[in-house]
Amino acid sequence: MNTFGRNFRCTTFGESHGKAVGVVVDGCPPGVPLTEADIQPYLDRRRPGKSPLESARQEPDRVEILSGTFEGRTTGAPIALVVRNQDVRSGDYDALRDVFRPGHADYTWQAKYGIRDHRGGGRSSGRETLARVAAGAVAVRCLAPHGVAISGRVVSVHGATEPEAMEAEIRAARDAGDSVGGVVEVTATGCPAGLGDPVFGRLDAAIAGAMMSIGAVKGVEIGEGFGAALLLGSEMNDPITRPGFATNHAGGVLGGISTGQDIVVRIAVKPTPSIRRVQQTVDLAGEGREISIKGRHDPCIAPRIVPVAECMLALVILDAMLEQAKYRGFGGG
Amino acid sequence: MNTFGRNFRCTTFGESHGKAVGVVVDGCPPGVPLTEADIQPYLDRRRPGKSPLESARQEPDRVEILSGTFEGRTTGAPIALVVRNQDVRSGDYDALRDVFRPGHADYTWQAKYGIRDHRGGGRSSGRETLARVAAGAVAVRCLAPHGVAISGRVVSVHGATEPEAMEAEIRAARDAGDSVGGVVEVTATGCPAGLGDPVFGRLDAAIAGAMMSIGAVKGVEIGEGFGAALLLGSEMNDPITRPGFATNHAGGVLGGISTGQDIVVRIAVKPTPSIRRVQQTVDLAGEGREISIKGRHDPCIAPRIVPVAECMLALVILDAMLEQAKYRGFGGG
Amino acid sequence: MNTFGRNFRCTTFGESHGKAVGVVVDGCPPGVPLTEADIQPYLDRRRPGKSPLESARQEPDRVEILSGTFEGRTTGAPIALVVRNQDVRSGDYDALRDVFRPGHADYTWQAKYGIRDHRGGGRSSGRETLARVAAGAVAVRCLAPHGVAISGRVVSVHGATEPEAMEAEIRAARDAGDSVGGVVEVTATGCPAGLGDPVFGRLDAAIAGAMMSIGAVKGVEIGEGFGAALLLGSEMNDPITRPGFATNHAGGVLGGISTGQDIVVRIAVKPTPSIRRVQQTVDLAGEGREISIKGRHDPCIAPRIVPVAECMLALVILDAMLEQAKYRGFGGG
Amino acid sequence: MNTFGRNFRCTTFGESHGKAVGVVVDGCPPGVPLTEADIQPYLDRRRPGKSPLESARQEPDRVEILSGTFEGRTTGAPIALVVRNQDVRSGDYDALRDVFRPGHADYTWQAKYGIRDHRGGGRSSGRETLARVAAGAVAVRCLAPHGVAISGRVVSVHGATEPEAMEAEIRAARDAGDSVGGVVEVTATGCPAGLGDPVFGRLDAAIAGAMMSIGAVKGVEIGEGFGAALLLGSEMNDPITRPGFATNHAGGVLGGISTGQDIVVRIAVKPTPSIRRVQQTVDLAGEGREISIKGRHDPCIAPRIVPVAECMLALVILDAMLEQAKYRGFGGG
Repeated sequence: MNTFGRNFRCTTFGESHGKAVGVVVDGCPPGVPLTEADIQPYLDRRRPGKSPLESARQEPDRVEILSGTFEGRTTGAPIALVVRNQDVRSGDYDALRDVFRPGHADYTWQAKYGIRDHRGGGRSSGRETLARVAAGAVAVRCLAPHGVAISGRVVSVHGATEPEAMEAEIRAARDAGDSVGGVVEVTATGCPAGLGDPVFGRLDAAIAGAMMSIGAVKGVEIGEGFGAALLLGSEMNDPITRPGFATNHAGGVLGGISTGQDIVVRIAVKPTPSIRRVQQTVDLAGEGREISIKGRHDPCIAPRIVPVAECMLALVILDAMLEQAKYRGFGGG
Repeated sequence: MNTFGRNFRCTTFGESHGKAVGVVVDGCPPGVPLTEADIQPYLDRRRPGKSPLESARQEPDRVEILSGTFEGRTTGAPIALVVRNQDVRSGDYDALRDVFRPGHADYTWQAKYGIRDHRGGGRSSGRETLARVAAGAVAVRCLAPHGVAISGRVVSVHGATEPEAMEAEIRAARDAGDSVGGVVEVTATGCPAGLGDPVFGRLDAAIAGAMMSIGAVKGVEIGEGFGAALLLGSEMNDPITRPGFATNHAGGVLGGISTGQDIVVRIAVKPTPSIRRVQQTVDLAGEGREISIKGRHDPCIAPRIVPVAECMLALVILDAMLEQAKYRGFGGG
Repeated sequence: MNTFGRNFRCTTFGESHGKAVGVVVDGCPPGVPLTEADIQPYLDRRRPGKSPLESARQEPDRVEILSGTFEGRTTGAPIALVVRNQDVRSGDYDALRDVFRPGHADYTWQAKYGIRDHRGGGRSSGRETLARVAAGAVAVRCLAPHGVAISGRVVSVHGATEPEAMEAEIRAARDAGDSVGGVVEVTATGCPAGLGDPVFGRLDAAIAGAMMSIGAVKGVEIGEGFGAALLLGSEMNDPITRPGFATNHAGGVLGGISTGQDIVVRIAVKPTPSIRRVQQTVDLAGEGREISIKGRHDPCIAPRIVPVAECMLALVILDAMLEQAKYRGFGGG
Repeated sequence: MNTFGRNFRCTTFGESHGKAVGVVVDGCPPGVPLTEADIQPYLDRRRPGKSPLESARQEPDRVEILSGTFEGRTTGAPIALVVRNQDVRSGDYDALRDVFRPGHADYTWQAKYGIRDHRGGGRSSGRETLARVAAGAVAVRCLAPHGVAISGRVVSVHGATEPEAMEAEIRAARDAGDSVGGVVEVTATGCPAGLGDPVFGRLDAAIAGAMMSIGAVKGVEIGEGFGAALLLGSEMNDPITRPGFATNHAGGVLGGISTGQDIVVRIAVKPTPSIRRVQQTVDLAGEGREISIKGRHDPCIAPRIVPVAECMLALVILDAMLEQAKYRGFGGG
């Protein structure tokens, strides 16, 4: 299942150290202005190597549109987007060929498929998110004329909530050959009320699935989230006024359908599993091994997950808007 | 989207105060022993009115298998399960016809469809979960011979974590005409490694979507969940031993694929939105109104969500097992 | 796969001699007037026992709407339609429990599932089409305000094309303890141009799949169909005029998308496989057997397939209209 | 809907005169040996310009595998296949920018999307089938170890059934500036019994949809096909023997499920719509126009559809085998 979405369907492909990473976007409305210049900035935001606190892998990550546009506009045909891999140092990974890295997908991937491309994590690498971001950028472009905008930020790292303190936590982890987790919040503004399809296509269910599909994410909450478990009904319920609501404890979703308020999502990002500190593991033959991972890794992946989470939210919302547009376009009885 | 699952597909239907609630299960393996007696206990566990702390609605909730079995075994044909509604007091809801209850789906449902069955919440009622439980009971029956078992419990209510303290919180909320939230934990044991389909069909993504599709759920976490944001990589990573893992911070899922350990999921349940305390709202015409909801409601819905969450987890795991069985059944190249 | 359609999704269930046959319709637009009286006439048309040339099975086939409507209108929630079986004489089929009827699904069903409900064909019975007709009647109701109408007829039986000659062919086959095939034509008028989704969701592909999914259908053609293989391009191409087209050799579909002309479909219906004449077969143990089928069967099933084919065409067209409405509702870039 | 299949899912993209045509294959079993050399021969068979009776467009059509294999074997990850377009003479099509070619998708595509890439037919070009053939070649590779083989041939052209007579018909049409239709037959041998999913996922329904999704196909029949309408039941029914069946009027499918015999499919191919003879049409402004199409076109497209139809049949059968493998892999109750 490398396809996401019902109406705006994104099929991604590509391995970390393969020839390319890409996505085919099917179901994009026709007539939307779209060139590589609309997509590239999102890839640039996601790209590693922009600061000393990020992986040093250097990739230009230039996107090429192979199909689906004509004279600068989408045609309704599938849009293929491809990014060629370049800074591939597969040799760095030779030592990992037969050993399972703790916290990684190595063990489970082997259990599932009986074969795996170990180079840089192969398909399970964070590099896979590049395709999501490319597709998400197209979604953002489609959403813009409808007044929907999405933004995200890191709200905490290892418990710290101030920028400087967060950076200090990351630096400390890096210096210790370790890594650290954090929380990312993503908000969508301008969404109309009425998005989401009960009962299994609820907007919050789609968001939760989308966010949890991002590697390293271990929790998702909407509005008050886990805080709602500590509240009374009289505190949690948002009074309804004219127009709209007095508060937004619900995070913009009630009964699985958007309320017209901001949609507020938080995700828990685990510490990057690749660390220099020595860990216990086993190899393919089941023999005990010690491992110290020396590749180019982010000590905290939360900052680089921000654009990914934004793009996943954009994909979910656009998909729901297209679904809802169906009824409006068809008309009632 | 009232269908859940790719291989074991459940299509639910029915309103709280309509004629019936039910589900069609498509894709059930043939030859599984199944009668109403396998399903009824799950409906009984979910049924309201079993204690003074639950809604007093009295429903026998007797399930009838309309199709898909022959001489006590499934045939591979779709299994239709129907429960007739009986204790319907729609008159209780006449006052709610034109007014939006805070915290409920009334407002958003109206925004989406322009029409709604207001009686008892209609399709957005918690009574919809009855169909999930019926389908989930079939899934549990299919999983049993494979050694997979699922259990859940309330782990906290309004912050309290001891049974007596939790009950006291519920009682206090009820007596104040209020309601209270809680956290439910569900665990699956006996799952083989290798379940889940990268990248968008990850097992954790499917679980998150499934759980968040339950009304009143505002957060989902797996393993350490939001706690992972407070950890170092060296604390979060589970050392790999032979066989298996030394710890289970991951909650049984790595890279979206099951590790073979227990799968541990926690969900945040918001306080029941129906409360006797007076709340501000508006009516269909947009006029401000005060509302005090006097129907038969649970002051804390978390206990009744336990079997629902268990059943959703069973549906996800069975679906993933069928997906994975495809490769095993087909064989490699 | 007992679900049909992407937007207007119909999930059918039920066996010939089980408790009931039914369908859940998900994705019906809200606000459409709908009661049992809108559906019943289609079931009556399909019902057996209306003439001496049809099966004598007597079923009232009364449909009940279990969900999805409120005060006579659809709400957007799933519509469950159920018809209870009544005139079930399963004893008639005891002799068939262990033997495979030639031309039937007995052999293949057993090969697939290893178990089967042999009574009256179980799930593979023509009675399954009742659920399609119920769902199709809802689709017809949705299409009516949009000016789309669908009608069908038998165009030939055993080569005969005049009503009296066709009836004579059926009578002769019946009297000989045999059965006979025919061709049914179905036409949709009033369809807008632009329906269908290239490349795999083409309107003609969807129609072909829908028609071939009806038991007893062995061929499907659109417009000139197989006759097109005998034509020159200059004969086949429909000249384009203003407005529309001068001819309709294409049968209303070009490049998989509707042209705005009538959509014309023909299907080949094989002779009813149940015949009184003695046939060679084997039993479950593989022993050779002779079989003479004495149940209540139609000597020519083509007339009773007419409403089924109409309904399948209605389902396909409504589904495509909803898909296309999405773009209109969303707007361009 | 540019995705085909449930288990072996192929998402195609690309326009005739765009940068590339390609496909992403998702759901391929892991461990299958696969290199470009397995795919290229199928593209070579489909390639134009191999005889004076075919389009003179010269394309090397070299396929590149961008992802999903590792050390010459599939990994279970999506396989992206891309073919760059080269012999693009878009200028040839400038005259067609504003005019609708009769028998083509120009008119309907414009009606649907309001925008189209007119160059060489854009996405509606027969060049799109290249992606199907690439995906089909992978399917053939997967099927081979299971003993399933597929072959096709032209069985008639303009009514002629002998090779020399067929060639004469094509030559005559070409010389007259015209084109001509034909019939293609495709056969699968070695399929196990039990493939296909009642009632809407029947094997014959899937085949019909797959075949009709090929441009220029106007009819599909299985086994006796339309000939079945001329038979008696006693002639059509295949006697069952041990093992298997005495005859194969059914064409290898009964009740929508494979019988284990050869699967025999015939498709009606309309004459190529692009002809030099003058035709009546209109332009975008609705003004009447005369058109004579002078590009590089096949006077009869049936021969070049043979590998495409074979590949579509391979895709359907592999998809059904994977679906069926699910039950075998999971085991019964």
